[in-house]
Amino acid sequence: MLERRLDELYQIGAEPGDGAYRPLYGTAWVKAGELVERWMKSVGLETRWDPVGNLWGRLEGRDKANVIVTGSHIDTVRHGGRLDGALGIVAGLTAVEALMKARGKPKRALEVVAICEEEGSRFPTNFWGSRATMAQAMRERGLDPAKIGSAARDDIGTFVELHIEQGAVLETTGRPLAVVSAIAGGVHLEMVVTGRADHAGTTPMDLRHDALAGASVMIQAIESITRALGAPSVATVGRIRVEPDQINVIPGLVVFTVDLRHSDIGGRRALEERIRSLCSTIASERSLGITIRTLHERPPVPMHPEVRALLMRAAADCGVNATELVSGAGHDAQILATRCKVGMLFVPSVGGRSHSSEERTEPKDLRLGTEVLARSLDLLAYE
Amino acid sequence: MLERRLDELYQIGAEPGDGAYRPLYGTAWVKAGELVERWMKSVGLETRWDPVGNLWGRLEGRDKANVIVTGSHIDTVRHGGRLDGALGIVAGLTAVEALMKARGKPKRALEVVAICEEEGSRFPTNFWGSRATMAQAMRERGLDPAKIGSAARDDIGTFVELHIEQGAVLETTGRPLAVVSAIAGGVHLEMVVTGRADHAGTTPMDLRHDALAGASVMIQAIESITRALGAPSVATVGRIRVEPDQINVIPGLVVFTVDLRHSDIGGRRALEERIRSLCSTIASERSLGITIRTLHERPPVPMHPEVRALLMRAAADCGVNATELVSGAGHDAQILATRCKVGMLFVPSVGGRSHSSEERTEPKDLRLGTEVLARSLDLLAYE
Repeated sequence: MLERRLDELYQIGAEPGDGAYRPLYGTAWVKAGELVERWMKSVGLETRWDPVGNLWGRLEGRDKANVIVTGSHIDTVRHGGRLDGALGIVAGLTAVEALMKARGKPKRALEVVAICEEEGSRFPTNFWGSRATMAQAMRERGLDPAKIGSAARDDIGTFVELHIEQGAVLETTGRPLAVVSAIAGGVHLEMVVTGRADHAGTTPMDLRHDALAGASVMIQAIESITRALGAPSVATVGRIRVEPDQINVIPGLVVFTVDLRHSDIGGRRALEERIRSLCSTIASERSLGITIRTLHERPPVPMHPEVRALLMRAAADCGVNATELVSGAGHDAQILATRCKVGMLFVPSVGGRSHSSEERTEPKDLRLGTEVLARSLDLLAYE
Repeated sequence: MLERRLDELYQIGAEPGDGAYRPLYGTAWVKAGELVERWMKSVGLETRWDPVGNLWGRLEGRDKANVIVTGSHIDTVRHGGRLDGALGIVAGLTAVEALMKARGKPKRALEVVAICEEEGSRFPTNFWGSRATMAQAMRERGLDPAKIGSAARDDIGTFVELHIEQGAVLETTGRPLAVVSAIAGGVHLEMVVTGRADHAGTTPMDLRHDALAGASVMIQAIESITRALGAPSVATVGRIRVEPDQINVIPGLVVFTVDLRHSDIGGRRALEERIRSLCSTIASERSLGITIRTLHERPPVPMHPEVRALLMRAAADCGVNATELVSGAGHDAQILATRCKVGMLFVPSVGGRSHSSEERTEPKDLRLGTEVLARSLDLLAYE
């Protein structure tokens, strides 16, 4: 049932031979939401679209507050895979369906949510920057932009989400499941290194102010420090450009970016501080100039300790040897963490692949993740 | 006189506030050639334009073969300076003028040449690739493309050229003059490093195949080896680009170039071999792919030992403490080396600056260089 529903959802917005694309408020996004709504109704959940476009399916409980919610996002990146977001919705629905059959009406109301958008909201996007365009797109989908504020809820007690890891740690360590301890915070830095553009033939090695040679030492140092600190520190130099960018001229200027992440704000700041100071030292040793600019900053979000413990217990109840892991990627749970207790489960990504049609998780791992999710909802809503 | 002529020539093709531009067969190039021809005639030289557009000014000698030639190129790069090329022509003219007055008719005929083009011919250029365009430009200047072959001469015995260093070695070592020992040969390599483009947040440091981190180690190794070998080895990574070039994605591919130069073919090949093997080792240690492609190769050109010795003697005769130096840049002399004995003199470049309006040499150094050139021509043509 789980695999069949995932296949059916993956067909919507399919890009021939190369993943699916369901951008917020697009036609594929509407079709996907309608399909999920039909599933919710067929299972016996009461459905509701909120003013933003989130779809909720509710199983009423005796306690109407402290609602237990599970789910994930329904939108995808371009050439998105079969599992990112979709798994959390489909597994949540499957788990709630099983619980209804086995246990009947819960103590606390239980809801499955298809969240309208996550992929673009991890970082500020152009879309949200252009409010007029967004309002227009909402109206086309029958949503009222003026009512956005009323989508906020204060009756949710706990949110749990099942997601694929999108990395290769579980696969590499041979674990079938992880309980997320925190969603990493991060900072994006831009480094500008200035030297002197000289003739590649007439300038001896010891008279050079080579901005790229200096930047290379910095990139290597960033990698070394971060490696030495080990998980959950990660640092990536993803972009680089040089000037004048000529084969026979020593680079006079290099601009490169650093993406730094850590589960702990103190840890991330300490790493950032070391990188800043090391790069400045390298620059001054080589008589190069350097300016470092913060492009974007996002604090880490710890998962709630009670929910973490409950998820570990649920895993143990299912006979699963789960590990704890920091999520390097952003997730819906980090948004909800400001309003309720949150927790997350990860299942392995084959080869660590994600955001592509290569995204895959072994069927047994999907089944196991769904079982542990169901057991968690059981503990949360029925005990 | 020397400074005045340099100023007058620098006005031709002047780009307001930022150097001069006299491309081959352009209007400024024609005007500059006509000015030099007037100077040659006023001094008493017999002038002649060859089929390619080289301008020759001849002082007849008793021996009509084994002609002694001095001069340099009259074309410039865009935003070219006051001395690159121009100095060799103007100093040659000034020296020959002085010798005529002091010593009269020489044993061997003495010529000053304004060479039509050097800047674009150092490396194969688009211009020479487009022969139809070139032929058209030649015809516009009254030159016959069909007669190019007849420009070749076999009556030249020795060619000596005075040029600016275009680097900062003389300035840094406090020497006023250098005798060039060789014009460095070189090779341009393109390195393609392949890793795997992964998520910057979800991929721990020890599971990465980061093409840029690997390329940085290579760039640093190239610098270290070349530095350790010391002059005349130089290596420059002038261009680099990464894919996918996104701030939050680990680079999966890096392409960078290496410009390697050395005065000796064996030395250059040894350096290239070490760089190739080191980069391959670094790639394999990091499970990265690497392909290395030769884009362009140019052999080194040694200056003739007799001419080198003669130039050192001329410097000593003038009381100058000259040094020997490898030219990292290409020069006319390397083309003429296939047809006659060649030698070159370098005067210091202030701050090593060249190919810009900042190009400058102290007047006393210009005077000294011209004196040594005159003494060399004296030894060559009159002894």
